[in-house]
Amino acid sequence: MSLIVQKFGGSSVRDAERIRNVAGIIADTYKAGNQVMVVLSAQGDTTDDLIEKAREINPRASRREMDMLLSTGEQISIALCAMALEGMGLPVVSLAAWQVGVHTTGAYSDSRVQRIDSERVQRELDKNKIVLVAGFQGVNRFGDVTTLGRGGSDTSAVALAAAFGADLCQIYTDVDGIYTTDPRVVPGAVKLEAITYDEMLELASQGAQVLHNRSVELAKKYRVNLEVLSSLERKPGTKVKEVVKMEKTSIAGVAKDTSVARIAVVGLEHNPGVAFRVFSLLGRANINVDAIIQSIGRDTSKDISFTLPRADVEEAMRVLEEHKSSLGFDHLTVEDKIAKISIVGAGVMNTPGVAARMFEALYDANINIQMINTSEIKISVLIDEEDAVTALRAVHAKFFGNGD
Amino acid sequence: MSLIVQKFGGSSVRDAERIRNVAGIIADTYKAGNQVMVVLSAQGDTTDDLIEKAREINPRASRREMDMLLSTGEQISIALCAMALEGMGLPVVSLAAWQVGVHTTGAYSDSRVQRIDSERVQRELDKNKIVLVAGFQGVNRFGDVTTLGRGGSDTSAVALAAAFGADLCQIYTDVDGIYTTDPRVVPGAVKLEAITYDEMLELASQGAQVLHNRSVELAKKYRVNLEVLSSLERKPGTKVKEVVKMEKTSIAGVAKDTSVARIAVVGLEHNPGVAFRVFSLLGRANINVDAIIQSIGRDTSKDISFTLPRADVEEAMRVLEEHKSSLGFDHLTVEDKIAKISIVGAGVMNTPGVAARMFEALYDANINIQMINTSEIKISVLIDEEDAVTALRAVHAKFFGNGD
Repeated sequence: MSLIVQKFGGSSVRDAERIRNVAGIIADTYKAGNQVMVVLSAQGDTTDDLIEKAREINPRASRREMDMLLSTGEQISIALCAMALEGMGLPVVSLAAWQVGVHTTGAYSDSRVQRIDSERVQRELDKNKIVLVAGFQGVNRFGDVTTLGRGGSDTSAVALAAAFGADLCQIYTDVDGIYTTDPRVVPGAVKLEAITYDEMLELASQGAQVLHNRSVELAKKYRVNLEVLSSLERKPGTKVKEVVKMEKTSIAGVAKDTSVARIAVVGLEHNPGVAFRVFSLLGRANINVDAIIQSIGRDTSKDISFTLPRADVEEAMRVLEEHKSSLGFDHLTVEDKIAKISIVGAGVMNTPGVAARMFEALYDANINIQMINTSEIKISVLIDEEDAVTALRAVHAKFFGNGD
Repeated sequence: MSLIVQKFGGSSVRDAERIRNVAGIIADTYKAGNQVMVVLSAQGDTTDDLIEKAREINPRASRREMDMLLSTGEQISIALCAMALEGMGLPVVSLAAWQVGVHTTGAYSDSRVQRIDSERVQRELDKNKIVLVAGFQGVNRFGDVTTLGRGGSDTSAVALAAAFGADLCQIYTDVDGIYTTDPRVVPGAVKLEAITYDEMLELASQGAQVLHNRSVELAKKYRVNLEVLSSLERKPGTKVKEVVKMEKTSIAGVAKDTSVARIAVVGLEHNPGVAFRVFSLLGRANINVDAIIQSIGRDTSKDISFTLPRADVEEAMRVLEEHKSSLGFDHLTVEDKIAKISIVGAGVMNTPGVAARMFEALYDANINIQMINTSEIKISVLIDEEDAVTALRAVHAKFFGNGD
């Protein structure tokens, strides 16, 4: 008998019909002889509706009360889904986070799971019950409800799978797995049978968001076997695990990210420590800098360019301008009509020729590379935003063909 | 410094505007130097909407899961109201029943408050916070959410007032107090300044429902001072307490109840114990019998008539017919075109002439009395349903005038 954790997102439970569909998947898993624990998100637009109600009353409501409000959405989902399973004659119990004992730490609206009590859930599993748990929520040491921030229900599912040593944690979404690239942009995109945690992390942070990074990191830490699959089709999805045997290629996928910008700090004095001071200032302002390039200028000055999320450009400019005299630079330039194309795969940098093939694909497509950034499992290039789709298709075709 | 518990019903918090209005009342009470604890119901139609969602999925859902579902309504209300108070710059905290520690016993969907923990609420009151508590809900010994059934939020408020020894428990509704009779039917109806628990109980059970009887009974048991008042008008309501000094009359009010029926068991043998057997059978079937009249027939047989809620007629007939041979009666007759008119007041039966004045009023209005039933604080008569409004007005005018 296996213990399987299943997580269904908001669109999978958005109405009565979808809830019955989800109940069908759960029922099949249970009837196959498994112990089943299920994490649900709030229905479709419930969270947005609740946020709108709050905004009407007080747009600057405290995070504590927002968490109190929003956590009702998941509670509604688990109660309704339990009713659907009861209708099928199956033993089931729904539990809110405070009933499970999902203990959280940190800030309201963005807290972290600290530990999970096993007593209540285990008692219900021992009674052969299907256990439905409200996702996205926990209880802090003050006995208050907290929510887990973006991707919170995925995190709830992985944390439960880790706490109970589940054999598998299935994340049901509206896509049927992880693809070599975005199938809406590149028709030749291929669904992966399996991918490693690290590859998944790189693909996600490069803009191929299916699983939230927090849940993947947690899964990696506790070696939770993940599977991403669709709640609307009964077929295998993509497994996310520690070791994956790749058959033909070391490339897991190609990602495009058009939410980046580049700032250049021009005319910095060529003193030791100046780069450190630039990035420690940005770090203190909570700005995540990605690729960095430093170039020596004509005389004693140098330029530093870096990429960052477009949403952070304004704040980064403000911080740098504020310290212009102490840093001693000439001026700043911003470029936000750029895109990042990345190939991701375990050992990509150790496989001879991979980088060359990527650059060749871009060259053949007549696309100019502005910056290059690499890690153990990733090669990213910065290009003009208007070339992004062409570049994605060219690079993907180079490694995976045209889907013929 | 007084401790005041305030309870607002669903229509008082139905939208953002109403919630701001409620927050205004709470704020005024707090700023006047009181400790304030507030119990809220679910917003307007929230509960009905949730019930409809459940019905779509499983019309025979378990009560446990229904309670899990419905309890979210009050949690939404307290969070939103807390946000409104935050917007006014006031210190506030919302607490669900599991956070307070409202411990319940008995069945799901109709449980009873067993005890209330004081620790968390007292800690918040000590920090000078306004404490908002989700009404209608509690937690049973299994750690499951239960709801308190009809009038549940009133019960929550009174139970909290009792547990914390509150100086006053204000029940805000959409009427501005308790009247001598239904003001929609009798224009001369007068708002009472005060009324005793027993009078309130009699008025309520006679069809003048404002407060649910359970909450009044609980208030009486723990001597909680109640006040019924409107959330839409800032003026005093009606106090409900143990001793009330009445100025002009011993009559608290006149009530009309058109939801009654009368069953006559005709031709019972004149044996000892036969009446006992009739009513113990009905009692076991959970049928509440009100007035009883027994008449000796022409020969050795007798008739027993009793009144009961119309909703119970079918079941009562079934039970009696089933035992026709063992009880030994001739036939049953049902009369459901009847109404009950009652005058209620502490000591009404001990005040000479009160009953006579009531009967005189009905005689003058040419209304025939079918049955009379009395208690320490109530005189009820059974009349034709078509005479009900005329009778109510005539009796009310006799004791309270025409409102001129």
